[in-house]
Amino acid sequence: MDHIDIEVVADPDLTDPVFIEGLPGVGHVGKLVAEHLVEEFDGDLVRRVYTTDFPPQVTVDDDGVADLTHAAFHHVDAGGRDLLVLTGDHQAASNEGHYELTTAFLDVAEEFGCERAFALGGVPTGELIEDDEYDVLGARTEDTDREELEAAGVEFRENEPAGGIVGVSGLVLGLGARRGLPAACLMGETSGYLVDPKSAQAVLEVLQTLLDFEVDFSDLEERAEEMEEVVGKIQEMQGGGGGMPSDDELRYIG
Amino acid sequence: MDHIDIEVVADPDLTDPVFIEGLPGVGHVGKLVAEHLVEEFDGDLVRRVYTTDFPPQVTVDDDGVADLTHAAFHHVDAGGRDLLVLTGDHQAASNEGHYELTTAFLDVAEEFGCERAFALGGVPTGELIEDDEYDVLGARTEDTDREELEAAGVEFRENEPAGGIVGVSGLVLGLGARRGLPAACLMGETSGYLVDPKSAQAVLEVLQTLLDFEVDFSDLEERAEEMEEVVGKIQEMQGGGGGMPSDDELRYIG
Amino acid sequence: MDHIDIEVVADPDLTDPVFIEGLPGVGHVGKLVAEHLVEEFDGDLVRRVYTTDFPPQVTVDDDGVADLTHAAFHHVDAGGRDLLVLTGDHQAASNEGHYELTTAFLDVAEEFGCERAFALGGVPTGELIEDDEYDVLGARTEDTDREELEAAGVEFRENEPAGGIVGVSGLVLGLGARRGLPAACLMGETSGYLVDPKSAQAVLEVLQTLLDFEVDFSDLEERAEEMEEVVGKIQEMQGGGGGMPSDDELRYIG
Amino acid sequence: MDHIDIEVVADPDLTDPVFIEGLPGVGHVGKLVAEHLVEEFDGDLVRRVYTTDFPPQVTVDDDGVADLTHAAFHHVDAGGRDLLVLTGDHQAASNEGHYELTTAFLDVAEEFGCERAFALGGVPTGELIEDDEYDVLGARTEDTDREELEAAGVEFRENEPAGGIVGVSGLVLGLGARRGLPAACLMGETSGYLVDPKSAQAVLEVLQTLLDFEVDFSDLEERAEEMEEVVGKIQEMQGGGGGMPSDDELRYIG
Repeated sequence: MDHIDIEVVADPDLTDPVFIEGLPGVGHVGKLVAEHLVEEFDGDLVRRVYTTDFPPQVTVDDDGVADLTHAAFHHVDAGGRDLLVLTGDHQAASNEGHYELTTAFLDVAEEFGCERAFALGGVPTGELIEDDEYDVLGARTEDTDREELEAAGVEFRENEPAGGIVGVSGLVLGLGARRGLPAACLMGETSGYLVDPKSAQAVLEVLQTLLDFEVDFSDLEERAEEMEEVVGKIQEMQGGGGGMPSDDELRYIG
Repeated sequence: MDHIDIEVVADPDLTDPVFIEGLPGVGHVGKLVAEHLVEEFDGDLVRRVYTTDFPPQVTVDDDGVADLTHAAFHHVDAGGRDLLVLTGDHQAASNEGHYELTTAFLDVAEEFGCERAFALGGVPTGELIEDDEYDVLGARTEDTDREELEAAGVEFRENEPAGGIVGVSGLVLGLGARRGLPAACLMGETSGYLVDPKSAQAVLEVLQTLLDFEVDFSDLEERAEEMEEVVGKIQEMQGGGGGMPSDDELRYIG
Repeated sequence: MDHIDIEVVADPDLTDPVFIEGLPGVGHVGKLVAEHLVEEFDGDLVRRVYTTDFPPQVTVDDDGVADLTHAAFHHVDAGGRDLLVLTGDHQAASNEGHYELTTAFLDVAEEFGCERAFALGGVPTGELIEDDEYDVLGARTEDTDREELEAAGVEFRENEPAGGIVGVSGLVLGLGARRGLPAACLMGETSGYLVDPKSAQAVLEVLQTLLDFEVDFSDLEERAEEMEEVVGKIQEMQGGGGGMPSDDELRYIG
Repeated sequence: MDHIDIEVVADPDLTDPVFIEGLPGVGHVGKLVAEHLVEEFDGDLVRRVYTTDFPPQVTVDDDGVADLTHAAFHHVDAGGRDLLVLTGDHQAASNEGHYELTTAFLDVAEEFGCERAFALGGVPTGELIEDDEYDVLGARTEDTDREELEAAGVEFRENEPAGGIVGVSGLVLGLGARRGLPAACLMGETSGYLVDPKSAQAVLEVLQTLLDFEVDFSDLEERAEEMEEVVGKIQEMQGGGGGMPSDDELRYIG
């Protein structure tokens, strides 16, 4: 096996496809959005990306069959709008691996003719989001249209995100810019402590407006209700205090 | 020395050999099984595999002679059934090393004509196994026969093993599938806290049925009795409680 | 992207340029000096250096535009004296990366014709510097003139810096010597706990004398006053004691 | 600079030279012996070995001159007996680095015609050695003469050293054996908590017998007295108890 090994599963012709990256990260926001798109629109697997920088690991499905860890590209037909959606269970394990892997991802996007990219993620606020006001922060390459993003509800704030954007999402912008691929990062506000389907929904709403498609949210809403029950129980255990849950209670990410 | 360096010690012709992997892991189950096979059937060393991904270390034998850390393949004639048994003292030290090393191992297995592989290990339950009911969980590549495995006593359970299979055993399946080698992973249930000869025996019994050989268990049973004494003393020290021993008391693995 | 990727932004002809390295380190002394030179003399960006050894990260500017982590060379015309000033947000992440990156930096310096180098940094004293007596310690390659450095106020002390010089600054001397580039390291004394504009000023004063230029200090003085307020508050919180602040209180570096 | 870069300083013809390795390790025993030989016999520097696997670091001498971290080979004429002595301030930083570096060291030894090697080190006992009874444990490649070593005072004990031999010393034997270089490891017993000149002297005495030379011990004895004062003070602070000093009190190694 090569250091990075791209398996061609299908090679459909896509029309003006948009590359959507949703690997695991803060609140699993990007991953939730990407998986929701693949599931709701019954996406077709087109590429598997294996790399020796991922953990040496297989998952086991319900029939006992082992599946080697990989990232996957799906073609999603979002009501006539072609999306190339990337998701998976891991980021790279090293600095160098992040650069190499994102380069491979961008190569695939380019091969399919994507001329626009969205990197999806969460931005941690450190406290539970109240009143369902999930803002979506943005960052972009210079050749994207800030006004178009703002019109779709994306906020740009000075000095945010404070630590920059780390991981594959950051590099989709950083390396995308260097190869002339207009890219934007959409980051849903989230506590940073929990898998956050509501933040994912906020990001999806922005994406709908930007790319002019519609998707059913009921699955995400269901998952959001489950998470609210979890949060409710935690708050009860803490005597009703609405503060930040302790680290131990909040190990739900994953 | 190359990154991976395979020393040819002997080159016997094997008949329909089966590749058995038993490197260190949970409860040292796989290693116990592999070493038991080599000892009971007086296996012949055929390959040493050195790699710069192993610790820079020599072991010293009773005559004071230093031996550079390596993994070893033995040819085991299990009463007419040819086995190619891999064991050693280390897994790889890096993600990339795991992939490279497992690829080298599968190359050796292929070179000897193995058309079937078993990766052996333990699956941690977090508590001591009671009443000697050591189940053996399975995972497999798509082209292996689930029914045959189940008939030999292997259980397939939904969502188990929960975290997938990590390390060389996982990759024997994951990389094996990619090169068309039918492989199964046999995982003996074990507490995860102790070297577990009983779990090893359970795995061996499955292997006997599957590969139609018979092996004497008395050495494993002896080691099991020794371990029971250890567990007994620990429980005494805890006032007879049958619960999970503390981490400090149970550092027997290794 | 290559492992190290040098982007040519401009290619001015420089006259007897001097290479100045100011990457992050103890008290951010070197970085403060380098950035001050670039800002005061309105330096021109000439090279961006990207490497897969930097974190996979973009920073986001006030217009929401993402910028891939890099180190930058600026041409600074310090009143007729050409300087080639290197600064950035990161050191390398690995031993090997430090060697490779410093080699790339020295290649750029050589390409511009630099025949002299200064590596700037701080040397930690472990306590707050009193009475504004910020000494500047020196180290050098054999072919630099110790007397000239001493005449400009640089001190050479036996067994200091005790732990040698680590990181890119150390290698500018170590690798510089091996390729025949006369280099000196100027290390401002600093507590090691705080970003230290006063120590940076002390280093700048030495550099002015050595290279015969003059720069306005008011920005550094302003930053120094801000830091003094921080220190004042910390000392108040400690009941006026002038001792070493605790680790928790002093996490201002960065 | 290459990954490993060997600088030729001098190229004397040596007669039946013996390779002596003394890099830092337990109790700095090996390093003390190697440095003692170089100093007492006024050894000549013949090779510097640089590697990107060493820390990116320079040391600074009393004249302020920076020296890039390296390992050094000296030719030592021990009263007619030619030794090729390797010492330095660092082991490698990675598994792979250890293998590569030791290979480079053995290449140099071979180039000078060494047909015998001694790797020097300490073996930790976990308690202070009483009554100056510093045993020297041995390990060897198969083609060295155990009896000769034992006659010189080396002890071979079953299951010792328990954890094998780690680092460059281990690989001098492990890789030495693979290339046909007879090698022995001499390990002075030492607490493992302190730089131990007495253990170094014990190793040196063995080496004298084996290689038929004589060296003055007064410098080592002086350093041993200094260390005894340190130990005495620690024991006082502990109320005269002769037990194992605490970790905090004993960070003298290095």
